[in-house]
Amino acid sequence: MTDRIAIDAMGGDFGPSEIVPATSTIINKYSDLTITLVGREDSLVKELDKAGLNGHPRISTLFTDEVVEMDELPSLALRNKKRSSMRLAIELVKDNEVDACVSAGNTGALMAISRYILKMLPGIDRPAICSAMPCPKGQTHFLDLGANINSSAEQLFQFALMGSELTSALDNIERPTVGLLNVGSEEIKGDDRIKQAALLLSNSDLNYIGFVEGTDIYTGNVDVIVSDGFSGNIALKASEGVAELVNYHVKNEFTRHWYGKLAAIVAMPILNQIRNKIDARRYNGASLLGLRGIVVKSHGSADRVSLGSAFEVARKEVTKNIPQRISSRFKDITNGNIN
Amino acid sequence: MTDRIAIDAMGGDFGPSEIVPATSTIINKYSDLTITLVGREDSLVKELDKAGLNGHPRISTLFTDEVVEMDELPSLALRNKKRSSMRLAIELVKDNEVDACVSAGNTGALMAISRYILKMLPGIDRPAICSAMPCPKGQTHFLDLGANINSSAEQLFQFALMGSELTSALDNIERPTVGLLNVGSEEIKGDDRIKQAALLLSNSDLNYIGFVEGTDIYTGNVDVIVSDGFSGNIALKASEGVAELVNYHVKNEFTRHWYGKLAAIVAMPILNQIRNKIDARRYNGASLLGLRGIVVKSHGSADRVSLGSAFEVARKEVTKNIPQRISSRFKDITNGNIN
Repeated sequence: MTDRIAIDAMGGDFGPSEIVPATSTIINKYSDLTITLVGREDSLVKELDKAGLNGHPRISTLFTDEVVEMDELPSLALRNKKRSSMRLAIELVKDNEVDACVSAGNTGALMAISRYILKMLPGIDRPAICSAMPCPKGQTHFLDLGANINSSAEQLFQFALMGSELTSALDNIERPTVGLLNVGSEEIKGDDRIKQAALLLSNSDLNYIGFVEGTDIYTGNVDVIVSDGFSGNIALKASEGVAELVNYHVKNEFTRHWYGKLAAIVAMPILNQIRNKIDARRYNGASLLGLRGIVVKSHGSADRVSLGSAFEVARKEVTKNIPQRISSRFKDITNGNIN
Repeated sequence: MTDRIAIDAMGGDFGPSEIVPATSTIINKYSDLTITLVGREDSLVKELDKAGLNGHPRISTLFTDEVVEMDELPSLALRNKKRSSMRLAIELVKDNEVDACVSAGNTGALMAISRYILKMLPGIDRPAICSAMPCPKGQTHFLDLGANINSSAEQLFQFALMGSELTSALDNIERPTVGLLNVGSEEIKGDDRIKQAALLLSNSDLNYIGFVEGTDIYTGNVDVIVSDGFSGNIALKASEGVAELVNYHVKNEFTRHWYGKLAAIVAMPILNQIRNKIDARRYNGASLLGLRGIVVKSHGSADRVSLGSAFEVARKEVTKNIPQRISSRFKDITNGNIN
């Protein structure tokens, strides 16, 4: 059985110059994989030539000149760009021409267009963005990372179900533990909405362990962390900020004086090992959950290594048939088999 | 003129065993400073003896056996512990026996008791917790870090005013830039409350620069970042989580093999310089703003170095007369001079 992935080749900060090399790596890694590149003919042909991939039997192309800009308003992209590389890639999923699509483009537009083209699975109000986060051992799946601003208690519960299904399938955990992201102080623990969501989770058959704090995103104490998209996005971006700050100082101190430069030579293998462990590129590829199809969002600044991770996420979701799994789970609930 | 600071000597994970050494350092650093230690007689006397501080002319003690536990409900601490070390330290501020108090104890209880004893400044609804965050150059003041769960647009505006006054005074910036923490996506930028707060800020004479993202907490692009306490607390804790994860891997990789151990010896001076730059201990000491008095919250796990930073924050706020400055600013607004 062949897994078929389409990529919006114009998305992200680099477009085909990084996407084609990433395609080269992944296509060589998996002999049962086909890739469809959607984007501008000139740049795609040029990059495919450069990579020696022109005429590759498992790579196809779909040409279009229309591109959704990174800062374009999602509503305008949805209304005006009916032939954008992003939209065509999503339509390939809808038409069952491919099994999944990947885009490093404008997140808001990807959300809006995916929702419009693919529709939601029955019983699910809103999509959620879910990503694996690095922990000392293993990983934690964290959602929603910004698809939604306000989420009702019921929607937080839906996120928990979707995150639990995804984690169960991808990480082979039978009953992943689920935590609800909240603030530390005992008494003022969250507003009514959080409390209501906690009640729904407690009464469900999910492996709900209670409230967790921001620190728990990176401890591995819990398999799935559920948050509204506002706080989730802020937690994610704050984390990126800390990582960049550490990176800045590491670069600075190891290049500033002769001693730093010397130490850098000796320490580099170790520093690289550390970087590998927490490399955001290894965790690139966030799932848009709740749709009738697989859409994976790559970071806009993703390079070929990063993009490779996003391809891996898409491929795994195809193999595990994530939308189908989520759908069955929600049907069970609707039929009253689960509470 | 003497600056007088009281410390809740029983607060935090270590109590007098770290608080007394921190007192020793700060009292030797500033000859115009007096410290009042509030806590259990036996442990305080023992630690003061150990540090050779018994009978120091600028250290006084106030003994009590009652202690607010770290996991105690704030409402119960407020109702039942009328002689707790925390409460007595705050009462010293109220009675003008000292100019500021510091506690590493239960945050919720510190908030509740401070508010009950000291009261709010006129025109301010709720206190906010504000801390300096490390940036490549300088620092950014970030509030609210968890004093509030829900904040109205008006309250976010009040936080901005308080944060701006604090930053102006402590960092000697005439008109600090102020950003409102929000999510990245253009279109869905926040709920009505955030939009309303943005409007209030735009129409004020604050140096408001618009929405900022979580990454900006650590870039130094903006002097003051305003958030509701829920997202602010989650951003802070997520940041701690990342820092701990990096720390874990650094320790692990530099001690695992012979090469790592060797590299550690060479790299240690550089790693220590990096650690110094981003050491959370240097940024310890969050201000409870909006009260009729100065209360500084230290991290619960603060050691003597950390506690030293919290003392420094308290001392600076005394020198700059922060509550008075905030109060004047709010009076200006009430009188219609600003806005």
